[in-house]
Amino acid sequence: ACQRAVEEADARQARLTKPPGAMGQLEDLGAQLAGIARTCPPPVPSRPAVAVFAGDHGVHAQGVTPWPQEVTAQMVANFAAGGAVVNALARQVGASVTVVDVGVAADLPDAPNLWHRKVARGTRDLAEGPAMTREQAQQALETGIAVAGELVDGGADLLVTGDMGIANTTASAALIAALTRSEPAEVTGRGTGIDDATLQRKTAVVERALNRLDRSEPLTVLAEVGGFEHAALAGFLLGSAARRVPVVLDGVIAVSAALVASALCPDAADYWVAGHVSVEPGARAALDHLGMEPLLDLHLRLGEGSGAVLAVPLVQSAARLLSEVATFDSAGVSGA
Amino acid sequence: ACQRAVEEADARQARLTKPPGAMGQLEDLGAQLAGIARTCPPPVPSRPAVAVFAGDHGVHAQGVTPWPQEVTAQMVANFAAGGAVVNALARQVGASVTVVDVGVAADLPDAPNLWHRKVARGTRDLAEGPAMTREQAQQALETGIAVAGELVDGGADLLVTGDMGIANTTASAALIAALTRSEPAEVTGRGTGIDDATLQRKTAVVERALNRLDRSEPLTVLAEVGGFEHAALAGFLLGSAARRVPVVLDGVIAVSAALVASALCPDAADYWVAGHVSVEPGARAALDHLGMEPLLDLHLRLGEGSGAVLAVPLVQSAARLLSEVATFDSAGVSGA
Repeated sequence: ACQRAVEEADARQARLTKPPGAMGQLEDLGAQLAGIARTCPPPVPSRPAVAVFAGDHGVHAQGVTPWPQEVTAQMVANFAAGGAVVNALARQVGASVTVVDVGVAADLPDAPNLWHRKVARGTRDLAEGPAMTREQAQQALETGIAVAGELVDGGADLLVTGDMGIANTTASAALIAALTRSEPAEVTGRGTGIDDATLQRKTAVVERALNRLDRSEPLTVLAEVGGFEHAALAGFLLGSAARRVPVVLDGVIAVSAALVASALCPDAADYWVAGHVSVEPGARAALDHLGMEPLLDLHLRLGEGSGAVLAVPLVQSAARLLSEVATFDSAGVSGA
Repeated sequence: ACQRAVEEADARQARLTKPPGAMGQLEDLGAQLAGIARTCPPPVPSRPAVAVFAGDHGVHAQGVTPWPQEVTAQMVANFAAGGAVVNALARQVGASVTVVDVGVAADLPDAPNLWHRKVARGTRDLAEGPAMTREQAQQALETGIAVAGELVDGGADLLVTGDMGIANTTASAALIAALTRSEPAEVTGRGTGIDDATLQRKTAVVERALNRLDRSEPLTVLAEVGGFEHAALAGFLLGSAARRVPVVLDGVIAVSAALVASALCPDAADYWVAGHVSVEPGARAALDHLGMEPLLDLHLRLGEGSGAVLAVPLVQSAARLLSEVATFDSAGVSGA
């Protein structure tokens, strides 16, 4: 990002007809968008695009969730038909929704907004051994980079992360524990709303995986305990940065992928906006580690990109303030 | 509001393709909107309208702010020209902006979106005696009721509170201290960003006003320490409820007016949505007293309706989920 444009935005905020700092977090966000666009005022994003990366998880076999694994494929069909929460929210803000199969454990029928990029039919069980080979993790990562590029080539000027994968909060908890060096019990949560016994099992699975883990290399951590959608999201975040397009992060799946992407390329984080903080405890731990302040805190725990899509108008508003609000001079308003 | 529609919404949320409760605060909001509309799913509001009530304050003479009083009139001109923050944010969400002069201490030139409803040229100094007569407070209140009705007659299906008035956080602090029975020091804040000496003066002014106050009657409290825009906003909130239209509350000025309106008619609060919580300490105290959870917490302290306008897409999204998201049955998705 461009420091000169950030400073220009800060200076401009001070001349707009409002008390200095009165727009709080949106002023920081406006400056960030100026830095990303390398110009002040930054353009107001008008073509947001959500990418929902879908994959299945071998760790499902450990009983970490009451939802059957086939729900991943069923929800992909729901996304493709426009019937899921993320579709409704995307229509509200005029965002497109693209579903990317990077690892669903089923053959998926063609659909207009479904991209077939399957790396494998689900990961292996991270409780027993590496979830992915290094090559598989790399392939999913590169898929995410490519998807970001294709969406930008298609005209998207604001990317939004989404995910689907039954049992994927278990992989996120493992990634977050490993990369923030937190205790598994502190960052493993109830996901879709599991009971105490299931939470205990889930936490034990994360502990077991962490015990065998070599944390020296982010790509190894990703392959060992991540999922195909986590790997693809990490790539998506890197690809957005490479294309200099801001990207809004959703909940715990996105921020766990952001830890991986940030470990691979710290500067990429300049392009990321935390859309919300999920109630999943690992989400706050990851955001704190990344030094990011979320825009929304609505006690959401759905995923799909739902919290990130809800934050899109805030991102647009932050940019719009810099371009449209009159200055004290231009409006003839007295200062303090 | 209609309890049957609220229950219908809760039952419907449980059948939508998402884990129960996963949309957090938006599920409660959706149920509230169903209750307001007396049907489930509730219609998605598509014509939001902001009313910015403007007035001046005799207490300005006490040195409670560094901003000159003429900024109120200058900002009214800025609103009318479309150059203020609230105008930019309203354009982002497709909301209209109407400015209502209920008490600006200057003659204001005509402008298309400026409604002349002046009760008097500013209030009297609340530090010295009653800010308004009871008749003036009543007139401003009735003006607010009428404005809500006129906007709804014009097609608005979601109202949004806005305000402008140099020194109006002093009146809000006094209203909040009086109506929540809080200590003035706990609910008096830095408003536009005043220094320590000014904050001390401002707090002392609120204490002085509170000491003489007869709190037995909400209309008396309003007349004694409120402002014309506070009175009009209280009426606006009652008028929205009377017309059964939801209204999004902005920051500390709106929530202090909501305390008055709620004291006059507790049931009206069923129609109110807290758009955000301002950094002004009285805002949180008032929301707690009203039992309301804000949608946004972006460290805003501008007023004008800015925080409420930012929350409009969240309100629309909450309604949209109930009408557009597929159920487990309709989408063929398995349950947990």
